[in-house]
Amino acid sequence: MRRLLLTLQYDGTRYHGWQVQPNGVTVQETLQDAVERVTGVRSGITGCSRTDAGVHAEMFCCLTETSTRIPDGKLIKALNANLPGDIAVIGCREVGPEFHPRYSAAGKQYIYRIWNGPAPNPFWRGYALQRELPLDTGSMNATASLFLGTHDFSAFCSSGSSVEDKVRTVSVSRVERQGDLVTYTVEADGFLYNMVRIFVGTLLDVESGRLSRETVAEALTTGNRVQAGATAPACGLYLSRVFYPEDVF
Amino acid sequence: MRRLLLTLQYDGTRYHGWQVQPNGVTVQETLQDAVERVTGVRSGITGCSRTDAGVHAEMFCCLTETSTRIPDGKLIKALNANLPGDIAVIGCREVGPEFHPRYSAAGKQYIYRIWNGPAPNPFWRGYALQRELPLDTGSMNATASLFLGTHDFSAFCSSGSSVEDKVRTVSVSRVERQGDLVTYTVEADGFLYNMVRIFVGTLLDVESGRLSRETVAEALTTGNRVQAGATAPACGLYLSRVFYPEDVF
Repeated sequence: MRRLLLTLQYDGTRYHGWQVQPNGVTVQETLQDAVERVTGVRSGITGCSRTDAGVHAEMFCCLTETSTRIPDGKLIKALNANLPGDIAVIGCREVGPEFHPRYSAAGKQYIYRIWNGPAPNPFWRGYALQRELPLDTGSMNATASLFLGTHDFSAFCSSGSSVEDKVRTVSVSRVERQGDLVTYTVEADGFLYNMVRIFVGTLLDVESGRLSRETVAEALTTGNRVQAGATAPACGLYLSRVFYPEDVF
Repeated sequence: MRRLLLTLQYDGTRYHGWQVQPNGVTVQETLQDAVERVTGVRSGITGCSRTDAGVHAEMFCCLTETSTRIPDGKLIKALNANLPGDIAVIGCREVGPEFHPRYSAAGKQYIYRIWNGPAPNPFWRGYALQRELPLDTGSMNATASLFLGTHDFSAFCSSGSSVEDKVRTVSVSRVERQGDLVTYTVEADGFLYNMVRIFVGTLLDVESGRLSRETVAEALTTGNRVQAGATAPACGLYLSRVFYPEDVF
């Protein structure tokens, strides 16, 4: 059997997230359908993370095992020919028996986009949160920098998570503006359930005055969810990079 | 009555073009609905051009007359609150009795986007034509430059047009690449029915070898539609600017 690491991009708008579930079409299931049509065999596919309904991926990594002899390049084309236009396979490489798309990852990068123009932008509908009131990226960065370092992020995790250890290390947490588009970039060794969306909700709640920066700083020690901000909508969130150490392949 | 020039942006994916028609929802009709909800009166709206089903607009200009006293800035917000997210009003200014959104225009700029990467891009689905085979922008520009100047563009016009004078002056006709995105920009004093889409189809047909550049040059004198290329899909096309001389307002 060949163990193939597939790299995907997807527009998550139409999907109930990555993971197969009974009540909606998911990216995993749609990819399994395409693999089955191309190879004739329905295979399990393991993803690098779960993404929520409506969340997008500029780079999502997943592993499947297959006995097909179709070469990697041709397999990419065949899968894309069998996938809907909102999911694309952009890479395929064979990996060794030790590789696991989730456990081998050293970290991930997420990007959250906010359209912050004087009027809504139809082309960012579904692809960015739209905020009309001008955002001050200097002030947002002062809040964003609080997340840097190693903390227990219990306050920044939605309930329903089964993860016990909520300590993560955030290495990048930065807000940038290009014209009317405000982008939040965050990298960490791992992310809790809804962590990035709560980071963004917190940045926005500080800007609107609903939360003080001092309360947010406290949340990092108390672990109290109510001291952090709201969960920002899924549509602005993109899984943008997955980092693997070169030796895990 | 106030004569208001409204500037719009819209994602044309869901619409049967600009102009009201019996068999589908149009941008014009959707805007008329919003104006009626805001002002209480259903008004006629005159557009700067007809755009086809699926064509987008980064800048579309239209005129409506209204007796509402709502100030321009508030009217923009009220209209946007009553429009679906794929149409936005981005500008509103009062204009004089001589102004006509179509006849006062000195010219327009269209942009056509082609995703030319090794794999499809889910985020450009519906917003660009997707072409896998590498496009040579140098060669495309050699074809694109043929369109420059004043010509009878009969060969680059779909049948069904009622326009008699098919002479237009093209002032910009240029192909550029940024990474995997190839953009064709064209400016002219006016455009015939499907003219930009046929320009793009012609550029692509020359690249694929279906047409020679000599045949295309000939089409500019013969006016023979079969010497020009196919009509490229609507999804890559954007009306991007409308030029008005400052004194027409």
